[in-house]
Amino acid sequence: MQTSKNRQFILHQRPAGTPTTDDVVLEEHSLAPLAAGQVRVRNAYFSLDPAIRGWMDDTPSYLPPIELGTPVRSTTVGEVVESLDPDFQPGDKVVAMGAWEEFSTVPGAMLSKVQDDNRFPLHYYANILGAVGLTPYFGVMDAGKPKPGDTLLMSAAAGAVGSVGGQIAKLAGCRVVGLAGSDEKCDWIISELGFDAAINYKTCGLIADAIARACPAGVDIYFDNVGGEILDGALLNLNSGARIVFCGAISGYNSAEPVPGPYNWWQILARSVTVQGYLVSDYVDRFPEGIAQMGEWVEQGKIKFREEIVDGFENTFSAFLKLFDGSNAGKLILRL
Amino acid sequence: MQTSKNRQFILHQRPAGTPTTDDVVLEEHSLAPLAAGQVRVRNAYFSLDPAIRGWMDDTPSYLPPIELGTPVRSTTVGEVVESLDPDFQPGDKVVAMGAWEEFSTVPGAMLSKVQDDNRFPLHYYANILGAVGLTPYFGVMDAGKPKPGDTLLMSAAAGAVGSVGGQIAKLAGCRVVGLAGSDEKCDWIISELGFDAAINYKTCGLIADAIARACPAGVDIYFDNVGGEILDGALLNLNSGARIVFCGAISGYNSAEPVPGPYNWWQILARSVTVQGYLVSDYVDRFPEGIAQMGEWVEQGKIKFREEIVDGFENTFSAFLKLFDGSNAGKLILRL
Repeated sequence: MQTSKNRQFILHQRPAGTPTTDDVVLEEHSLAPLAAGQVRVRNAYFSLDPAIRGWMDDTPSYLPPIELGTPVRSTTVGEVVESLDPDFQPGDKVVAMGAWEEFSTVPGAMLSKVQDDNRFPLHYYANILGAVGLTPYFGVMDAGKPKPGDTLLMSAAAGAVGSVGGQIAKLAGCRVVGLAGSDEKCDWIISELGFDAAINYKTCGLIADAIARACPAGVDIYFDNVGGEILDGALLNLNSGARIVFCGAISGYNSAEPVPGPYNWWQILARSVTVQGYLVSDYVDRFPEGIAQMGEWVEQGKIKFREEIVDGFENTFSAFLKLFDGSNAGKLILRL
Repeated sequence: MQTSKNRQFILHQRPAGTPTTDDVVLEEHSLAPLAAGQVRVRNAYFSLDPAIRGWMDDTPSYLPPIELGTPVRSTTVGEVVESLDPDFQPGDKVVAMGAWEEFSTVPGAMLSKVQDDNRFPLHYYANILGAVGLTPYFGVMDAGKPKPGDTLLMSAAAGAVGSVGGQIAKLAGCRVVGLAGSDEKCDWIISELGFDAAINYKTCGLIADAIARACPAGVDIYFDNVGGEILDGALLNLNSGARIVFCGAISGYNSAEPVPGPYNWWQILARSVTVQGYLVSDYVDRFPEGIAQMGEWVEQGKIKFREEIVDGFENTFSAFLKLFDGSNAGKLILRL
């Protein structure tokens, strides 16, 4: 396999607020020969995730910032085309910590092979069998410590992680209430996904009061993808001993100003709350367990999920921006 | 025993910022006859704690706000003078959830009897054998999940809870670094209490950098009594999987404006941190264990503590204000 050119979305400068095409620029570069231990993957799908926005900032986080002048980091799914790692052969289907580029060249250690690769469509590994499934799986089942009868409040409940997480919590015996940004989304999570109740946070009035009405027995687990005012409203409704699974904070990702923690921070003490900073990567040793369980639930029809697949490598960046205005209908995937 | 008059410090209005003598007023009232189940205690000591300031606000917390027109709630130590609860007899020494008043009249359920009352001076039960000892005991040993070799960072380390908590962490095998507000306090926690290092947060420059220098292996447990900038500095130095024992937030107690949570809130996620909202009252079933262990350490000379005893009931309120300018030298106790 001989390819010499590689189109890439390069991070040229760090965004202030919502990223623009001055920040992220499509360029074409030559591919360098493989070094020892490296594997070249022809990317087939990109998983477009809110977390990528955080990696564009120059602030300490769980992964280093994306270096300026390099392609935008992304989970990708693709096929090995060339390998100097004996564990990978051309033709292998893999999930990579790659980037927004046609070909990603990575050490074998940053790849995982898709097992049993005819059982599910390949792009499921950029969705329900990838971080989108594993994040809510370990977040709800492990960090959330659900007990039957608990009330779980899910933020961004029509989003990729939230919609799956709510269904997992139902399977764990919880009463599940979701927050979403339109009546249509609220209808969907109740009628299609089986949530017990839903709150349209754009029209509900004071969020804390709306949560109180929807959760008359209080909230035992708050799964936080958003931060901001919704987190503050949730904090006023937590039961003593409640758990917050702190999985994301998308409300602040595009802020150019420092974003403070919740104003109701004191409630964490007053209600003996446990806040668990949650990264799915902490569970990497248990991914096989998670993929097996999620695959089984998917085959049994117990977990439903939506995806919006945008075609065309050149549309990667414009598709990514959908995450921040809420216009994507389900997990956002780019198909090259 | 016949007493008809009772002097009390009454909460007349909710303080905006630091409480004043317009907010808390000394008055004399008549004592009502005891009702069924009630016990009358002649107070000998008040434990003057920062938490009392929080109870003066009309915000939801772990105890209801002090009602306007009633005496200021406080832990007290004293002697039963009259009882309509068969579990208590005149002469019993007790710890009460009472108030700033000469006589507190409470249901027996809000009292605990001092066991073996000649073993320690009575006022120890307003100090090392009361909340001041039990709060750091369960906070460090249970909520903090210490492992030998961990680095524990203690805020307000020369304060009542912090100075004891640091010594407990040393007994648990931790390296202990304390933050305090003067060189004299820093010297004291190292030379007298055995802390490994100390930071004068008033003169150290950027707090995050000073913590980094004092904790070269990072911080595994941050015991937070203060919130604010010190919490933000600690968050930038936590190791992955670190624990925050959220025990207090005195930096914000007298603010008239809403105080946000930490600006470095995101680091809780990025470093997989567990924040444990911590109330010693959650451990009430284990108080006998805690009192026994603290008593043993005190007798063995393994835990040192300081106290500042202010004499005179009428000085209660002015003594309380010392907590907020840091002028008290050790646990603050009022002796009637």
